[in-house]
Amino acid sequence: MNYAHLTLHTDKYQINMMYAHWINGTHNKKRLFEVFFRNLPFGNGFAVFAGLERIVHYINELHFTDEDIAYLAEQEEGYDPRFLEELKAFRFTGNLRAVKEGTLIFPNEPLIQVEARVFEAQLLETAMLNFLNYQTLIATKAARIRQVAPHDELLEFGSRRAQEADAAIWGARAAYLAGFDATSNIRAGMMFGIPTKGTNAHAWVQDFASEAEAFERFAKALPNHIVLVVDTYDTLNSGIPNAIRLGQKLQQEGKMLKGIRLDSGDLAYLSIRARKMLDDAGLHHVKIMASSDLDENVILNLKAQGARIDSWGVGTRLITAKDDPSLGGVYKLVAKEENGVYEPTIKISGNPEKITTPGRKKLYRIINKQNGKAEADYIAMHEEDVKNQSKLKLFDPVHTYLYKFVTQFEAVDLLEPIYENGKQVYQLPTLAEIREYHKAQLSLFWEEYLRKLNPAKYPVDLSQLVWDTKMDLIHKYQKLDREP
Amino acid sequence: MNYAHLTLHTDKYQINMMYAHWINGTHNKKRLFEVFFRNLPFGNGFAVFAGLERIVHYINELHFTDEDIAYLAEQEEGYDPRFLEELKAFRFTGNLRAVKEGTLIFPNEPLIQVEARVFEAQLLETAMLNFLNYQTLIATKAARIRQVAPHDELLEFGSRRAQEADAAIWGARAAYLAGFDATSNIRAGMMFGIPTKGTNAHAWVQDFASEAEAFERFAKALPNHIVLVVDTYDTLNSGIPNAIRLGQKLQQEGKMLKGIRLDSGDLAYLSIRARKMLDDAGLHHVKIMASSDLDENVILNLKAQGARIDSWGVGTRLITAKDDPSLGGVYKLVAKEENGVYEPTIKISGNPEKITTPGRKKLYRIINKQNGKAEADYIAMHEEDVKNQSKLKLFDPVHTYLYKFVTQFEAVDLLEPIYENGKQVYQLPTLAEIREYHKAQLSLFWEEYLRKLNPAKYPVDLSQLVWDTKMDLIHKYQKLDREP
Repeated sequence: MNYAHLTLHTDKYQINMMYAHWINGTHNKKRLFEVFFRNLPFGNGFAVFAGLERIVHYINELHFTDEDIAYLAEQEEGYDPRFLEELKAFRFTGNLRAVKEGTLIFPNEPLIQVEARVFEAQLLETAMLNFLNYQTLIATKAARIRQVAPHDELLEFGSRRAQEADAAIWGARAAYLAGFDATSNIRAGMMFGIPTKGTNAHAWVQDFASEAEAFERFAKALPNHIVLVVDTYDTLNSGIPNAIRLGQKLQQEGKMLKGIRLDSGDLAYLSIRARKMLDDAGLHHVKIMASSDLDENVILNLKAQGARIDSWGVGTRLITAKDDPSLGGVYKLVAKEENGVYEPTIKISGNPEKITTPGRKKLYRIINKQNGKAEADYIAMHEEDVKNQSKLKLFDPVHTYLYKFVTQFEAVDLLEPIYENGKQVYQLPTLAEIREYHKAQLSLFWEEYLRKLNPAKYPVDLSQLVWDTKMDLIHKYQKLDREP
Repeated sequence: MNYAHLTLHTDKYQINMMYAHWINGTHNKKRLFEVFFRNLPFGNGFAVFAGLERIVHYINELHFTDEDIAYLAEQEEGYDPRFLEELKAFRFTGNLRAVKEGTLIFPNEPLIQVEARVFEAQLLETAMLNFLNYQTLIATKAARIRQVAPHDELLEFGSRRAQEADAAIWGARAAYLAGFDATSNIRAGMMFGIPTKGTNAHAWVQDFASEAEAFERFAKALPNHIVLVVDTYDTLNSGIPNAIRLGQKLQQEGKMLKGIRLDSGDLAYLSIRARKMLDDAGLHHVKIMASSDLDENVILNLKAQGARIDSWGVGTRLITAKDDPSLGGVYKLVAKEENGVYEPTIKISGNPEKITTPGRKKLYRIINKQNGKAEADYIAMHEEDVKNQSKLKLFDPVHTYLYKFVTQFEAVDLLEPIYENGKQVYQLPTLAEIREYHKAQLSLFWEEYLRKLNPAKYPVDLSQLVWDTKMDLIHKYQKLDREP
């Protein structure tokens, strides 16, 4: 499966900054950038990290083609031809660390760290954020949906409403990663090995003289996969009775009607009625599938009303993350190498929540050894020896007077080396492995953090050194660069 | 620029229906499907049709590769190998009509008509809807934003928050089509000839010992395009004063500071202060650009508060259509060819608004010859001679007792032939032509239909024959297929 050539999938200002650094002679300076996000989507208590595989493919394929160079040469900026020559040799030669796909993640944690020549680090920003923001968003939405229907079949049906073709496939992948069972998109199935599912459509039913005939013909064509859409004309008076007649006939022939699909109307009422009609006809094995603007809130409410639905086809509201369609992942410079040492740097801004956390850091998940549960995430400087400390002080990074000590803990380093000196050192796990890992991640957390509505806030704390470094830099820049 | 191979960018059930038709021997029957949507996004009074060029590329490239066939052969459906053989020869051989990109469109109008072997028509559904739903949505959002800032520079800055890579480029195209001036995405610029714009980032400023030095260095590198981001440390006390000092120095050297960019904080207050500071320093020519979660509502409010912003960088809320991130375009069977004649067909459903309008139809825009304004859109059967009627009765298709007559009118046929017998007969216009056409479309409509908040409802009416055909079929299916 060939991917599009995406080297120019970036903002103009990245190229302009690469150019300015090149002109300025600073393009080879090593810089450390971090990806993080500030707010959780959907009011959820966590997000599910996804997008790394896409990023690895992208980095491995990064190069400027002659066509790219020719386009850049035409730009009004008037780039020096020697700069364009330099681009021809461009490849990623830096280090990259990232959390694993499927990891539960929280605001203001470093999720990806890029340590590279500023010339390279700058180029990656736009595409990495684009990939990670979308897949993480959809994986998080899918995790919420899985939570309200832990034992049902969940199908991703969103392709026609997805925000273009890439969203359909990468969204299908993200949904599967976080617990969905299948997708309707065949290209996603082929690219990622996700099971694909399909029923039949209203157009099929309309195509025959009667609904009964349409059902029979479909059953003949696909005898092992008969799921019938029953709302083309009238669900209770036509669709379900016709499906039942066919189901009984198939049963007599030793074959099986697998399911019916409700695609409109009141799904609670219709599914309860449908279940009773099917059961009364001895068709207990026939499953009821529902689709029609579903999401975790609709599903939860339908279940509360006693809906008898076994399988949920979730489309628009999953694939577009309809109630919160963007994740605000950002990419910020946090340290600059000078004479072989990384010096922390900060961005301040008028909005306090936009102030970055400077320095070359590590991200630990602090696991309580007694109960195996996550206590907090802990951000320390790279050189701090967290794993071997006997006692950690965890304090709130905003309300610093709130703190506690932990002792019997294991500190799990969440950032894996992915590239070292431009070489991929991380073997991408299979999707099946990512799904397993994601499930194991969920089991690390108390229910309070996972619940869909008003979850407790999971602590993400800074080490004293990180906190002090941040405060020092804020104070420094509050003095510098001001008019008297 | 190579596009991805998208033949399998479809739902499994399309392949299953193609297969069922093939097994059933009905796959060569001609069918007529229509694309339409039921609800306008954002509470807007119109939508802007976009996505046709993408659809044409897609149809021209449709073919099953050996890899596609091999994947389908593995599916649990167990497709007959002769069916897979048939797919190898697949190409689109039908007719397709569509409204032109840039056209103002309304609910329940046929926007695309596909008249083809059901085997072909079925396959197209998912991808066509996916392309059209997204680009039409973004073009509509962009038109709303253009409306509140008719004379300002509008820049599409959404790539990092777009729902994956395709959304970034096709969203940039849709925004440009509906009146934006440029995009930050270079790949979109290269693919579609859209102007690309960029400034500099906080990382550039952080990279130097002081903001003043960072500004100077940037100005040296890109002397003709100096737009400085001024909020890295402190907008009013550091960023703007440093920009002014540089601007004055450049002026003395006969060069020019082009603009400053505000990216956080209170944009109304900051822009008013910035304008005054720049003007007081004699830098009247320096433009103020703003970015930071903008959309048409924020821009309108900022302007009402007297904000002095010349150029708007609009990101997330445009590229994801954040307040309404999906358009519900659907694809429905409306007529079946039997013995060379198209017979109307209907889908009923439990939700009245989901009932389709049957038949092989045309879509006319009724223009008042006296004032040149659009009176209504009018859907008639293909064989009705609307253009030569002296008087048309326009009645509301829901409240049928509401009607009026029009006489001095021109009936413009909005559906253009795009394919005839599989051959592309439509020459795709340039983006510049589409932009001009879109502007001309806007001028056809009274302000009441165009306004952003609570627009008047533009009439989309059915001919008496279309209305009667629909009622007849509803009554027919209310009798058929029922339990007594």
